[in-house]
Amino acid sequence: MAPSSELSVGVIGCGYWGPNLIRNFSSVKGWKVKYICDLNQARLQQVHEQFPWAEPVTDVRLLFDDPTLDAVAIATPVSSHHSLAVTALNAGKHVLVEKPLAASVAEAREIVRVAEEKQRVLLVDHTFIYTPAVRKIKEIVDSGELGDLLYFDSVRINLGLFQHDINVIWDLAPHDFSIMDYLFPDKPIAASASGMCHFGNQEDVAYVTAFFKKNIIAHFHVNWLSPVKIRTILIGGSRRMIVYDDMQNSEKVKVYDRGVDVVDSIGGIYSILVQYRMGDMYSPKLDTKEALRAEVEHFKECIEKGQTPVTDGRMGLRVVELLEAAQRSLDQKGVRVPIETSSNS
Amino acid sequence: MAPSSELSVGVIGCGYWGPNLIRNFSSVKGWKVKYICDLNQARLQQVHEQFPWAEPVTDVRLLFDDPTLDAVAIATPVSSHHSLAVTALNAGKHVLVEKPLAASVAEAREIVRVAEEKQRVLLVDHTFIYTPAVRKIKEIVDSGELGDLLYFDSVRINLGLFQHDINVIWDLAPHDFSIMDYLFPDKPIAASASGMCHFGNQEDVAYVTAFFKKNIIAHFHVNWLSPVKIRTILIGGSRRMIVYDDMQNSEKVKVYDRGVDVVDSIGGIYSILVQYRMGDMYSPKLDTKEALRAEVEHFKECIEKGQTPVTDGRMGLRVVELLEAAQRSLDQKGVRVPIETSSNS
Amino acid sequence: MAPSSELSVGVIGCGYWGPNLIRNFSSVKGWKVKYICDLNQARLQQVHEQFPWAEPVTDVRLLFDDPTLDAVAIATPVSSHHSLAVTALNAGKHVLVEKPLAASVAEAREIVRVAEEKQRVLLVDHTFIYTPAVRKIKEIVDSGELGDLLYFDSVRINLGLFQHDINVIWDLAPHDFSIMDYLFPDKPIAASASGMCHFGNQEDVAYVTAFFKKNIIAHFHVNWLSPVKIRTILIGGSRRMIVYDDMQNSEKVKVYDRGVDVVDSIGGIYSILVQYRMGDMYSPKLDTKEALRAEVEHFKECIEKGQTPVTDGRMGLRVVELLEAAQRSLDQKGVRVPIETSSNS
Amino acid sequence: MAPSSELSVGVIGCGYWGPNLIRNFSSVKGWKVKYICDLNQARLQQVHEQFPWAEPVTDVRLLFDDPTLDAVAIATPVSSHHSLAVTALNAGKHVLVEKPLAASVAEAREIVRVAEEKQRVLLVDHTFIYTPAVRKIKEIVDSGELGDLLYFDSVRINLGLFQHDINVIWDLAPHDFSIMDYLFPDKPIAASASGMCHFGNQEDVAYVTAFFKKNIIAHFHVNWLSPVKIRTILIGGSRRMIVYDDMQNSEKVKVYDRGVDVVDSIGGIYSILVQYRMGDMYSPKLDTKEALRAEVEHFKECIEKGQTPVTDGRMGLRVVELLEAAQRSLDQKGVRVPIETSSNS
Repeated sequence: MAPSSELSVGVIGCGYWGPNLIRNFSSVKGWKVKYICDLNQARLQQVHEQFPWAEPVTDVRLLFDDPTLDAVAIATPVSSHHSLAVTALNAGKHVLVEKPLAASVAEAREIVRVAEEKQRVLLVDHTFIYTPAVRKIKEIVDSGELGDLLYFDSVRINLGLFQHDINVIWDLAPHDFSIMDYLFPDKPIAASASGMCHFGNQEDVAYVTAFFKKNIIAHFHVNWLSPVKIRTILIGGSRRMIVYDDMQNSEKVKVYDRGVDVVDSIGGIYSILVQYRMGDMYSPKLDTKEALRAEVEHFKECIEKGQTPVTDGRMGLRVVELLEAAQRSLDQKGVRVPIETSSNS
Repeated sequence: MAPSSELSVGVIGCGYWGPNLIRNFSSVKGWKVKYICDLNQARLQQVHEQFPWAEPVTDVRLLFDDPTLDAVAIATPVSSHHSLAVTALNAGKHVLVEKPLAASVAEAREIVRVAEEKQRVLLVDHTFIYTPAVRKIKEIVDSGELGDLLYFDSVRINLGLFQHDINVIWDLAPHDFSIMDYLFPDKPIAASASGMCHFGNQEDVAYVTAFFKKNIIAHFHVNWLSPVKIRTILIGGSRRMIVYDDMQNSEKVKVYDRGVDVVDSIGGIYSILVQYRMGDMYSPKLDTKEALRAEVEHFKECIEKGQTPVTDGRMGLRVVELLEAAQRSLDQKGVRVPIETSSNS
Repeated sequence: MAPSSELSVGVIGCGYWGPNLIRNFSSVKGWKVKYICDLNQARLQQVHEQFPWAEPVTDVRLLFDDPTLDAVAIATPVSSHHSLAVTALNAGKHVLVEKPLAASVAEAREIVRVAEEKQRVLLVDHTFIYTPAVRKIKEIVDSGELGDLLYFDSVRINLGLFQHDINVIWDLAPHDFSIMDYLFPDKPIAASASGMCHFGNQEDVAYVTAFFKKNIIAHFHVNWLSPVKIRTILIGGSRRMIVYDDMQNSEKVKVYDRGVDVVDSIGGIYSILVQYRMGDMYSPKLDTKEALRAEVEHFKECIEKGQTPVTDGRMGLRVVELLEAAQRSLDQKGVRVPIETSSNS
Repeated sequence: MAPSSELSVGVIGCGYWGPNLIRNFSSVKGWKVKYICDLNQARLQQVHEQFPWAEPVTDVRLLFDDPTLDAVAIATPVSSHHSLAVTALNAGKHVLVEKPLAASVAEAREIVRVAEEKQRVLLVDHTFIYTPAVRKIKEIVDSGELGDLLYFDSVRINLGLFQHDINVIWDLAPHDFSIMDYLFPDKPIAASASGMCHFGNQEDVAYVTAFFKKNIIAHFHVNWLSPVKIRTILIGGSRRMIVYDDMQNSEKVKVYDRGVDVVDSIGGIYSILVQYRMGDMYSPKLDTKEALRAEVEHFKECIEKGQTPVTDGRMGLRVVELLEAAQRSLDQKGVRVPIETSSNS
């Protein structure tokens, strides 16, 4: 690759998400979008009109074979992630890949292995990790002010576009799985899931529960059939609790000085063992940077400084491990399925 | 019993809920609160001061032995419901019993059997069924305007008082189980549940899923450890959907003209099989009657006219069946537990 | 009066508000409701059934002539406040009078004068001053953390009951005028008002602006014709600002670390002279005491200790002065009307 | 001008709003942005980088002198609108001008006169008129379902950027003045205003009231010093009422079946003359088209078909007439100032 101060990227896949990547790579100083690539010629032409500076190509091999191209961004259906990412990494490209990293744990593991072997940067596009809200929550959790973490509860529902290749868990839950992975130092050891197909043959409503070694429980509600759009995460701590409501224009994150105190006294029939405690609430100021812009800047910095991304392949792999466990549970009527922890080692 | 136009009731249990029953029985024309009863003498005296017209007694047998007493209302811990209700029914009293009806399916079944044998009115205090909001939703569901029912999703969470004799499912889920039972003609055939104890030995966070013969899924989130109070039910239909937010001061019920249309065309990589449809929303006017007052009036009417209450023993039994199935699943790590359907026959 | 530790009160007027006063006087230790009084015999009887311990009388002179009666609470139409309050004070009774204190400044002044002469406690029932929310805001304002006070903006609108004896300003604005009087050390020196009668001959929508010596502006929107109920007060400070939304179940008071900084630099065409500043928001915990109960307790304490109530006659007079100025402006097409400041001396 | 099917436009002023105009003119088929113009060379260069297809010029005369240019869009400070618009119209250009149309009624009248003389399209950029929400409200008002219009109440407040050349009325109120003008067939005949300068010498908080021949009142609260962003309009009708909350992501427009019924009966002391009526609420579905895009398309259509824009010069003039009346009232301590109605003839 040329010892240039500008990095070049080719974006593969011009569907729903691709143009967002192209726009952000185009607007961040230090990135140059050299190629845009899609099998669909009409779609490719349409996107090319918006971004005339990028060369439109239908054959992805042109990107891999261009020795001056630094990186690729993969925004294709998940079934193609493994093949494209592995080929790109083997061709020496840094890779940004849309979530989820791959369609199976086996595939995800191989991508991670190749990236490490080739010493290329592998960034999984878990965009929410780069939002000001999640960044701020991370600060709060890391400060310890929540006390012991007790539970993680997320609801991500909408009248959503049905996907015909993946179900609602694979579509929406990666957002919440990655947020939990980012925030919680402990990782789930088992999962169970229930869901229902009402139309077609993919679940459109599903519930996933994750279990930990410690007394932590996590739960995820994903739904393509909700009349209202809800994106809420509750994080319970023994001293403080957080409500993150992504649909609010302001005050997305609220920290409640609320918790429970164990009371030792032995009481009568109307007594309680535990009492709750209520104090003030505060809502921290959030900065207004667009998440995908921050992510694209971070990708550049990781490449230039040889750093590991916040949303690296191992996080992407852990998300796929949880997805696969949830899927297996879904296929077995909700039986609790253990999660192998290879990604933590 | 005296052929009087006024009915007399004794309220057993003067804890949190008892005074609400006393207040409503006192304010509804045609009811007279003759006795209030509690084992705790100090508590009894305290409540007596608010309601000086009712005779305070500690011995519940005085109520059963009074041939002029028409009815008893039982607001004691659930473990005592069976014994008190069966004795009262055998003494010829009509019985209103706080939810849940009993601590087990076996107990609940016997209460129902005795009530039917003795031809006494047995009303289970599933108060939400008598709210203007739930009544209105019932009208809408019964009208068929929702199309096929697809899912029922409820969240009932708060920084709640811990109970030391029952877990969060037995405490909070009876509300939502009864609402679903009232609204949905189909009844669940299996349940699974997950939860976590963080303090003491009762689950304080739990998730219950219920399954049906048809393509319906129901899910219940109950939580004593939430920093915010949420009481929301979503009901998905193929043509319309309802959001019931009980925490709103106005517009508690919203009906969305939203749904999905199955699209037959076979598309390419970016196509979808199913498309969503969005129309207007409306929020019906609700009347403002207090639910417990309506329930107490309904109890009187059922006694006088020999009618079966809306929240009769069989509804109470079905709620306990679902509770017991959820509990068994909770004890077996979330395994799906079938529900016996005796109560529907 | 008897040297008893219990105080006796007679409540005059059993319309909408009277029963609330009776209920609170009945439930606060140390108060005994001796009489309830109304000219309307049927209404009196109806209220008597709820509060059987109070003697019902139609002739108010019985109260004034009873030497053992300590206090009266006046909850009659405003036109009768002056006559009743002055007679009661002259009879040696302590007086709690519903807001507004009187129908004119002249009347209000005389009530205040007689109370001071007779050294009786005169408490004006500006209930909002006793709410946990307003008490907390008072603490925050007094702490100085808001910086310089810049404006007070209130909206109190609803689909309200029309009054045929007073317009919407006299009905609703006393709440907000008293809250501003309580919170702001500076008092208005002039007012202007606009409004409209759509039905009958009383204004049902009105806007009042109050002016101060300092650079403070206050504005009040009152409306009986709003489809939604809004009760919001904004308080602007140079360093922090408060939003008080009384319709929220929780988080009624929010304090924003927001303000403006004056920037000295002289800029070009796109420059600004002043920049805004945004920080965190916090919402203080509020206690849950009922305001009217706190007020009735405060009335008792003032009588026993010879203290001046927080909502004393002078506050009540200042509220009437602002009402009268607003009314005069309303009658003169919005001309700015000065406010005489006798009440501040 | 060339008989081309594509129209060319030059955008004058590249401050805050100009780039939005350039972006929309660029994306609407049938428009070509030929020039972008700004006195500030650095700013011009910066904007040129985003829109490389438009020629950057600092001398506006180049636009007027180009016989092939069809139209100009003026997004400069309001003091320059008159001179630029009149010159452009005299040069035969169609003109889109940012709101408010001009800095005085005299200036606005001349612009309108020249446009009519030259038979050029003059569109005032009252963008809100092109939003799906306001369009839908217009439909509802025009249908007559609200009954008689009673009041218009708007709140548009924020922690806003201070302007040093105009006060908060001239900055924010044109939005609401134009919305009222669009919706209400009656036009105001007088206005009064109050406000306060806290920093610098421009009012940062202000209240404007407008009066009509009929029993209608309109009121506008504009504020640069609010800690929260509120954009709400209430429209009261005798049969139905509308709440338009522009800050909502969904359900921006709600129509309440609420109103008042005049009751003839003469009652006693607790009676009322008027009773309120409450029914359902509905929230119509809104389409999702960007307002500025719709406006730019409308500008094109008006030019091609010789039509008068919805937001024509006469609407722009009426808005300036109301602004000038409000300003005069502000300068005279709130005196009610009549509005001359030349624009309606």
